[in-house]
Amino acid sequence: MAPQSLELHRKQFPALGNKTYFNYGGQGPLPQAALEAIQEAYAYIQRDGPFSEKVNYWVMDEEKRLEAVIAQELGVSPTTLTLTENVTIGCNIPLWGTMWEPGDHLLISDCEHQGIIATIQELQRRFGIEVSVCPLMETLNQGNPAEVVQKYLQPNTKMVVLSHVFWNTGQVLPLKEIVTVCRQAKTHKPVRILVDAAQSVGMLPLDLTDLEVDFYAFTGHKWWCGPEGVGGLYVRPEAIDGSDGGEPLHPTLIGWRGILTNSVNQPTGWQSGATRYEVATSARPLYAGLRAAIAVHQRLGTAEARYQRILDLSAYLWEKLRKIPGITCLSTSPPQSGLVSFQLANSQHLQLVRWLENRGFCLRTLLDPSCVRACVHYFTLESEIDELAVNIAIFNQ
Amino acid sequence: MAPQSLELHRKQFPALGNKTYFNYGGQGPLPQAALEAIQEAYAYIQRDGPFSEKVNYWVMDEEKRLEAVIAQELGVSPTTLTLTENVTIGCNIPLWGTMWEPGDHLLISDCEHQGIIATIQELQRRFGIEVSVCPLMETLNQGNPAEVVQKYLQPNTKMVVLSHVFWNTGQVLPLKEIVTVCRQAKTHKPVRILVDAAQSVGMLPLDLTDLEVDFYAFTGHKWWCGPEGVGGLYVRPEAIDGSDGGEPLHPTLIGWRGILTNSVNQPTGWQSGATRYEVATSARPLYAGLRAAIAVHQRLGTAEARYQRILDLSAYLWEKLRKIPGITCLSTSPPQSGLVSFQLANSQHLQLVRWLENRGFCLRTLLDPSCVRACVHYFTLESEIDELAVNIAIFNQ
Repeated sequence: MAPQSLELHRKQFPALGNKTYFNYGGQGPLPQAALEAIQEAYAYIQRDGPFSEKVNYWVMDEEKRLEAVIAQELGVSPTTLTLTENVTIGCNIPLWGTMWEPGDHLLISDCEHQGIIATIQELQRRFGIEVSVCPLMETLNQGNPAEVVQKYLQPNTKMVVLSHVFWNTGQVLPLKEIVTVCRQAKTHKPVRILVDAAQSVGMLPLDLTDLEVDFYAFTGHKWWCGPEGVGGLYVRPEAIDGSDGGEPLHPTLIGWRGILTNSVNQPTGWQSGATRYEVATSARPLYAGLRAAIAVHQRLGTAEARYQRILDLSAYLWEKLRKIPGITCLSTSPPQSGLVSFQLANSQHLQLVRWLENRGFCLRTLLDPSCVRACVHYFTLESEIDELAVNIAIFNQ
Repeated sequence: MAPQSLELHRKQFPALGNKTYFNYGGQGPLPQAALEAIQEAYAYIQRDGPFSEKVNYWVMDEEKRLEAVIAQELGVSPTTLTLTENVTIGCNIPLWGTMWEPGDHLLISDCEHQGIIATIQELQRRFGIEVSVCPLMETLNQGNPAEVVQKYLQPNTKMVVLSHVFWNTGQVLPLKEIVTVCRQAKTHKPVRILVDAAQSVGMLPLDLTDLEVDFYAFTGHKWWCGPEGVGGLYVRPEAIDGSDGGEPLHPTLIGWRGILTNSVNQPTGWQSGATRYEVATSARPLYAGLRAAIAVHQRLGTAEARYQRILDLSAYLWEKLRKIPGITCLSTSPPQSGLVSFQLANSQHLQLVRWLENRGFCLRTLLDPSCVRACVHYFTLESEIDELAVNIAIFNQ
């Protein structure tokens, strides 16, 4: 990727024009093409509708167009995809659609998002399930996450919940290996694997069919740089209907998009595939926006090339940071993702982030482990990293 | 309202410029000011973020600003409001947050939306609850809905589910009277009343505090003419915490917006008020859009004046329709809402709607009862109604 073409590419993102941005894991900058696609969709809906037979068909087509694009990016069939408002709802669907019984066991890693933890605590309260937390945070620098998961599996384990890329440490889990461990475990029924993909979709090259996870919940507004408010959930075909001997996933959040009806509008069953988990009216203009955002990335290079660039840049940042006195990177080797988390010897993390934001650098703090997180995307510039490192060094003097 | 000022008012809605619109109950036309507010919000987020401490505060403020506007329109405290993606999710929250036990009784009217019926069927399957359907459709022209509800209440009735305005017949239920009947019934615990407000919010003047319903689920994209993808749920304070001796409403869909966390980010409880039912990232620019749409209506007159205008116009349309040979209005007296449903003697409802759409008139069919629905808003013109009636008469010749 020539520096010149990268400069040109970056001009498509208005947010990058007036700041030095390292919060891709929080929210990606919206490309101008995505904003324009949203505006065009609003204009179209108002011109031919808003509610008309013509627009209603367009809405269905728009949904299919977005699912086709996402399906290609994830290496799955479009029929396995449900569009959601965000990654959290994508996680809630399998968590509530599993028929829990008292004594069922759920295994979660110690690096999951608080929203998911709270949902699982409520499942525990309502259904008397057993929940274990397996210590994967400490495997960032040594040990094998798959072996730890294996140790924590029980005959009554029904679901394993973990992230593909940890939002705090940036660690990439060996998902394929973990899936194999779960499939080979002697459990009463096939273990369902729910993956929080908030930090992996748009960053890692993906082939979910090959990975064989059951549920993969993602959002469009982080590494894909789409508009906030559109995400999705992949459900493995065998997990939809239970054809692998495991449980079928029942719809919980239910509305007209997910059901079939008869001639007098009474519900008669579910839509085929993962469409059954969709609910009702969404902000459809945003679907066009996410499609346009994904197209912007595709034009610059393959998912593999973009990920390699992220690795090069995060290694570059990591090297710079570790040379600053009083800074410790969480990872003792170059990061395997675009998330680079580090600690200050004086623990002034919030102060640093605020000081940087006043100087036009966007980063964020995390609480567990207490750290600062800097994210690099494939279109981050080395010069941005240089400037960030210089400023952190100044603050830390 | 002078015809001249109305013409000027209508110019704020781009969708009204090239068609004759009668689908307000499907989706309202988006005012230009709402579209501009959405665009400004996107521009702001990209300028100061998208993810920064500054924008994160703005997002929280934007949420509070919208809740304050909605609270005023509904006659409630902002702390009783949850923002949702749509009315269906607003109904799903109380349906899944009630702790159902086998044998609990749920009463639903026979005019509810298929998405809500399907949710209740799934509750029935999972928890073995008893469901009764009370025949309110036939009370459109005779009988008292409150008396019918009273007859169907049982000692084990836990929840009553009905619409404030029926989406098919356009009937307005005497909600206050129905609430009184439910409160006076000899049930094991206070009956919870869940109202599908898809057709009432933005059409009826409302004072939910006075109505004393427990749950009121609404959307911004129909009679309020906001962007699709933003709605909400009102939860009566006593139904949040169960302080009336009834059950507290437990969060089901759970995410970071609804929970409290400690210094290491672990969940420690729920946010106060109805915020606890909110989930995660939403399309926040649309909040600004809905606020702008509501302001457009407020500038033209009070909720009472706008509703009176809707009644005048629906009576005008109803009179015109009943004079056309071969047309029967469902209501035998002037409608109490902006929904005017009618049947053709030859039952060619879909054909009529398609024929009209080709001529620039937007209406829709309904399946139960089989009919065509024409909606009038306060800014509908008499001349639009005249033209519609002429065209229906031509089709029906």
